[in-house]
Amino acid sequence: MTAHNQPESQAASAAEQDRGKFHRRPITPAEAQRRIAGYVRPAETEQVRLEEAGGRFLAQTVTAPHPYPHFRRSGMDGYAIIADDLLEASSDHMIWLEVVDNIPCGYTPSVSIQSGQASRIMTGAMVPDGADVVVMLEMTETRVEQERTWVGIKRQVEAGRNITPIGLEVKEGDTLLEQGACIGAGEISVLATFGVHTVTVYRRPQVAVFSTGTELLSVDEPIEPGKIRNSNSLMLAEQIRAAGGEPHLLGAVEDDLELARTMMMNALAKYDLVVSSGGVSVGDYDVMGDLVRSGEVEMLFNKISMRPGSVTTGAVKDGKLLFALSGNPGACFVGCELLVRPTIRQMMNSTHDYLPEWTAQLGRDYSKINSFTRYVRGHVSVENGQVIAYPALLDESNVMVTIKDSDCLIVIPPTTEPMPAGTPVSILKLAVQ
Amino acid sequence: MTAHNQPESQAASAAEQDRGKFHRRPITPAEAQRRIAGYVRPAETEQVRLEEAGGRFLAQTVTAPHPYPHFRRSGMDGYAIIADDLLEASSDHMIWLEVVDNIPCGYTPSVSIQSGQASRIMTGAMVPDGADVVVMLEMTETRVEQERTWVGIKRQVEAGRNITPIGLEVKEGDTLLEQGACIGAGEISVLATFGVHTVTVYRRPQVAVFSTGTELLSVDEPIEPGKIRNSNSLMLAEQIRAAGGEPHLLGAVEDDLELARTMMMNALAKYDLVVSSGGVSVGDYDVMGDLVRSGEVEMLFNKISMRPGSVTTGAVKDGKLLFALSGNPGACFVGCELLVRPTIRQMMNSTHDYLPEWTAQLGRDYSKINSFTRYVRGHVSVENGQVIAYPALLDESNVMVTIKDSDCLIVIPPTTEPMPAGTPVSILKLAVQ
Repeated sequence: MTAHNQPESQAASAAEQDRGKFHRRPITPAEAQRRIAGYVRPAETEQVRLEEAGGRFLAQTVTAPHPYPHFRRSGMDGYAIIADDLLEASSDHMIWLEVVDNIPCGYTPSVSIQSGQASRIMTGAMVPDGADVVVMLEMTETRVEQERTWVGIKRQVEAGRNITPIGLEVKEGDTLLEQGACIGAGEISVLATFGVHTVTVYRRPQVAVFSTGTELLSVDEPIEPGKIRNSNSLMLAEQIRAAGGEPHLLGAVEDDLELARTMMMNALAKYDLVVSSGGVSVGDYDVMGDLVRSGEVEMLFNKISMRPGSVTTGAVKDGKLLFALSGNPGACFVGCELLVRPTIRQMMNSTHDYLPEWTAQLGRDYSKINSFTRYVRGHVSVENGQVIAYPALLDESNVMVTIKDSDCLIVIPPTTEPMPAGTPVSILKLAVQ
Repeated sequence: MTAHNQPESQAASAAEQDRGKFHRRPITPAEAQRRIAGYVRPAETEQVRLEEAGGRFLAQTVTAPHPYPHFRRSGMDGYAIIADDLLEASSDHMIWLEVVDNIPCGYTPSVSIQSGQASRIMTGAMVPDGADVVVMLEMTETRVEQERTWVGIKRQVEAGRNITPIGLEVKEGDTLLEQGACIGAGEISVLATFGVHTVTVYRRPQVAVFSTGTELLSVDEPIEPGKIRNSNSLMLAEQIRAAGGEPHLLGAVEDDLELARTMMMNALAKYDLVVSSGGVSVGDYDVMGDLVRSGEVEMLFNKISMRPGSVTTGAVKDGKLLFALSGNPGACFVGCELLVRPTIRQMMNSTHDYLPEWTAQLGRDYSKINSFTRYVRGHVSVENGQVIAYPALLDESNVMVTIKDSDCLIVIPPTTEPMPAGTPVSILKLAVQ
């Protein structure tokens, strides 16, 4: 027997030890999420300028400092008048009103409107006191006589037409945005409208990412037999960034308990959250598992009744959460979406912490059976208003290539029967660009 | 009559001039998109490190430099053996094979397997030559005799089990990612797996953003009667960023043709794309419209048969596109999603340039009728696998507050009849975080 870093006599005892590791008590994915949520601590807050707030999560609830619109706004180019002045108007009888003002956008009216008067007004401009309607330009004619301008109208109009009342959209003191809201274009529009030029947001959770495995090459190394490149760290970094966190890539460590311990402890000391991949399977070098079992961290779970990623481990130390995800790319991806993403978002008080769950129909037969819930990478299509979810053809945990084509995870409950196309299923919608 | 920046005698002639502006020839939204697409020029390219490539668009097609997996990979912790060696195995008859190697992840096997031999192997490790199956650890027992280790198995196994063949996921030379692909976590996983540590991506299109309107206050100014804050510029900046562009905020100019001309010409000279809001409505200060009509830029359209935003104007100068969007927040938002976002993505060769179009059912009655196609802000809900789209209760073009709550645009075709709940409709899905 040829050994690698191990004395020969350990072969049998390692197998014995492995058997001990089989006895992990699985908990459900929901229970794992519940246990994690109990340890989430809110991120710190910081002030950012509104133009840099896109994608950040609000750490304050914002209320309206004034109504919106805050003045009676004209919805048309035309003339602001008193509706009752047109009571006698008809196609045979044009009413002439004297034009006493011209109100472009951004100006205040110079005069109030009295009976018999009109103000020329632009879309978006402030309606003068006295006026109760804006008549659109297309309904009018004008004449100038002795340097006085008159506007003629042949139709009756309903009071209130083309005037947006004060506070139609928002009353003063209304809640504009809740704490935890993710700031997108619509939120920015609201905040800018109300003059909120700096916002208090949650600091992006600082997330350490590393991988364990002697088989790992860095991405810029040439390929070698038996080795694979450390793709999980970079994939996790992007998932973390998309979730709202700031990833810190610490690289990879060999399958060595001491190296992994040092890496993990340093990461826990320095960052808000730690995510590793690899070193959790039931094998010789289950270093993250050993570390968790050593008692240096408080274990939350080391098995989840799900595929892929049943060996996912969660732990906490000094109030900071640690996730040891499977090294299989598919399992690593799913574990991050199901456990790490919600954690990052909960740290920022997001109400959209978990992936949105939709109902759908299975797009093709799915024949794998399992006593665990399976999260199958898939693709959503909407056909005649019906959501159809197609499972990826290669969905094993160690398959990498189908991750990029997936925009959902199809939830296959524990089952002993193959599921035919058309079966109603739940899906978790992934955020894709 | 009190004038603002205008001699009194202009009141009538301005109205006359306005009438001239009514005669715009509308084109359909699809035709507007087609005209724009004809002028899109690809963005320049740049190299970025893979860890910074998230959200960027690939400017190269990437093919596989090697198969994946590039070695026969064990899917289990166990023993690599020859399946035929177990032909006599049964619950009554354990077959004993000599353990001749121990292959952790990341190592190459030291020996080939001959009949009667086994190699201890870890999940993800390289299967030795000669072996054609990996038997999982749980199916085995071991004994050590005179410093030789033996593994006992009581069951027959099928050749090929627990071995991932070379190239199962990807063959050498396969296309991994197409030019124009948006790089997310899955794409990063693929690129990292194949050692692509720097990628050629499109430079983010540099997009100038400004607003026109004397009524505009900057976001940090106190509110004033008749004025509103310039919320559109910041909203557009976030939409542009989300589309993949890099916005440059140039501020706001008053309703003054010369100021607007200077702003637009400088922006066209310096940036790849120019987006303005305001100054296109049929009113006294249609400065962007006047500028386009002046012939200094080539007009593509100045009216689109859609609501909101029918007065949206598109033009081109020296091969650069200019969009003059409505100043109404709702219209500005929709115009950017329908016209600017696709342009930015087409510049980066994205195949996902237009908003994804889904079929859905209308969630509540929609009673507005129009001869133009209406893009109604709405909210998508999936109920029993059916996509239901709820129109916002306030969807006028000048309404700002419902933008943030919208995750789709419901396409209401030209109609003279109210549409009851349940009517099949098309929706354009907005990207939301």
